[in-house]
Amino acid sequence: MAGMEHDPGGVVTLARDLIRCPSVTPDDGCCINTLAGVLEQIGFSVTLLPFGEEEARTPNLFARLGTGHPHLCFAGHTDVVPVGSARWQHDPFGGEIHDGILFGRGACDMKGGIAAFIAAVRLYLDQTPDQRGSISLLITGDEEGPATNGTVRVLEWMEKQGQIPDFCLVGEPTNPAGMGEVIKIGRRGSLNARITVNGTQGHVAYPHRADNPVHRLLALLGELTAAPLDTGSEWFEPSSLQVTSVDVGNTATNVIPAQAHARLNIRFNDLHTGADLSGWLRTVTARHAPGAEVSISISGESFLTQPDAPVEALRAAIRAETGQVPRLDTGGGTSDARFISRYCPVAEFGLVGASMHKVDEHVSLADLKQLTAIYAGFLEKVMH
Amino acid sequence: MAGMEHDPGGVVTLARDLIRCPSVTPDDGCCINTLAGVLEQIGFSVTLLPFGEEEARTPNLFARLGTGHPHLCFAGHTDVVPVGSARWQHDPFGGEIHDGILFGRGACDMKGGIAAFIAAVRLYLDQTPDQRGSISLLITGDEEGPATNGTVRVLEWMEKQGQIPDFCLVGEPTNPAGMGEVIKIGRRGSLNARITVNGTQGHVAYPHRADNPVHRLLALLGELTAAPLDTGSEWFEPSSLQVTSVDVGNTATNVIPAQAHARLNIRFNDLHTGADLSGWLRTVTARHAPGAEVSISISGESFLTQPDAPVEALRAAIRAETGQVPRLDTGGGTSDARFISRYCPVAEFGLVGASMHKVDEHVSLADLKQLTAIYAGFLEKVMH
Repeated sequence: MAGMEHDPGGVVTLARDLIRCPSVTPDDGCCINTLAGVLEQIGFSVTLLPFGEEEARTPNLFARLGTGHPHLCFAGHTDVVPVGSARWQHDPFGGEIHDGILFGRGACDMKGGIAAFIAAVRLYLDQTPDQRGSISLLITGDEEGPATNGTVRVLEWMEKQGQIPDFCLVGEPTNPAGMGEVIKIGRRGSLNARITVNGTQGHVAYPHRADNPVHRLLALLGELTAAPLDTGSEWFEPSSLQVTSVDVGNTATNVIPAQAHARLNIRFNDLHTGADLSGWLRTVTARHAPGAEVSISISGESFLTQPDAPVEALRAAIRAETGQVPRLDTGGGTSDARFISRYCPVAEFGLVGASMHKVDEHVSLADLKQLTAIYAGFLEKVMH
Repeated sequence: MAGMEHDPGGVVTLARDLIRCPSVTPDDGCCINTLAGVLEQIGFSVTLLPFGEEEARTPNLFARLGTGHPHLCFAGHTDVVPVGSARWQHDPFGGEIHDGILFGRGACDMKGGIAAFIAAVRLYLDQTPDQRGSISLLITGDEEGPATNGTVRVLEWMEKQGQIPDFCLVGEPTNPAGMGEVIKIGRRGSLNARITVNGTQGHVAYPHRADNPVHRLLALLGELTAAPLDTGSEWFEPSSLQVTSVDVGNTATNVIPAQAHARLNIRFNDLHTGADLSGWLRTVTARHAPGAEVSISISGESFLTQPDAPVEALRAAIRAETGQVPRLDTGGGTSDARFISRYCPVAEFGLVGASMHKVDEHVSLADLKQLTAIYAGFLEKVMH
């Protein structure tokens, strides 16, 4: 690898080292220890926080440099999604660099982002002799999995320890195509429901002697999908309900079945809560199919961080490095930011996510270095 | 067994003999040979007509007594539905008689009916020295199964041989609860459709980048089931469309699936044809899901036999024996009468069907004897 002039803050080296730790959820590879070593060398006080069953502990880490305020926290995950069944051109855990592109699972989601933040801390510390406040990192090895013993548990621990930050930056790859496009200041909530309608089996020739659960299910799903849930709000796209599966499994053409199932997902904005939507689902279901079973799981409520000073500082840092003013967005999937938002304001900005979860995931070295510079600029602005 | 005074025309003996031939479709047991022997003894000219693949021939029989007109044909099937998983009190193939009740699979559907008609022919021949016209039997061993190489093929053969009758009586158990309640003079048609909608898979968080085939399927099924197909006609109940299955098989809660399937059945009256309904299904499907695959199979068109002289003769014979005027009906499932109706007028009258397809299927000896008398009375009236 090149010297520091070609690898500012050591971002490329650290990104490669992390990619070379195979950490498909729930495996850690060597991620947490690698990070603990690097952070301790910088001066962070590092606490390893493995949570969960003894045989299957989720690797987590909290590290803090300084004790004062403002307290800025960077949150990220070292686990990655599986390689998938398609064939890669480059070893997913090799950290190969070709023509200025670093390849590997996690390159943009989000080992590259973690490396950029740590490199930015190094640059910030080098350039700022008179430091105020404190910087911390919340790193989990279970964001892509069930996320039960990851960020949620670390936050509980942080609260007990009086370590809740004033602001949190999540390093997810927020940019669709090019650096500087999007800061996420919120996320939609997500709700999954499973509906089971019980009817009365019978012969299709005698429908009056049966009670077709498929027709009841069709009617209730028809009502649920008849109109949009809303038309969006100031910072959010319209909410969306998607029926993801309907299953009966009846192969007899002359039989009205006894049971029918449906699954649906709602991505909802700040005009709704999980509880309101659950009530609505149960009411509509009960009207068309009294006695139907409705099982609901809310993966996260929607949240919004008002675009105040820290978000403005991030925006300014991005503009200074990329020349463009990032859009403030709340779209897309969920991230651990939904958990953090319960404790403090949180925004997300990272690399370009175009290759995330895909074959030959990659990041350009130029983007890695630019993100390092953006994070360093943000630290400088926000830590005053 | 008792003598002829207790077993008119030998109906009970023959019904028992047939029940003792285990003939769950496609097995014949010993049915066709038993019938061939009995019919030849009476004087019928019997032709065995096994159709289908060499290894799995469907047993069929055509027998005719005389060559003149009127030519009355009795149609029936010797195959029976499976015993089922519930436990029988009486051997399903034992032909046990307890307290005047004959038990066994096929007792009412329809070995008892065949036995009654043959017994009636014996009585008719005994009582009518000066016979006109001719009597035939069309017996198949595949009515409860696919019905491909049964009645359909025998009718083709009969047509080629110039043996199409003037009227056909089918011995299905048409009476819901007591003898003499119902003559069927038609049946609804039946159509099965399978619809496959192809969409574009995607993440539920980005529905605009996907095309949810479940929503298209819900919309089209919603339109198909929104209103009744009709309100019935002179002789028919309203047509009925039943969605019998919807299947997606998607277990990932965050994925919009690529494909969704539905199956439906339509029982339709004489206001529709299979072709009209097929066109309607394809039009509605194409409007909601262009490019969807619609596979349709028409098991039978609806048909109606005008209640003319032969039906009136049957009605009179029933009234003479039971004291009640049977209702003319077109409801219920399908029968081989749908095939026969393409060639000649057909009506159905037989035993009480309450126990058909159920555990401990049975028929009372009184009903067997009464049906024999009804059939004999009908022969006397119709063969003039």
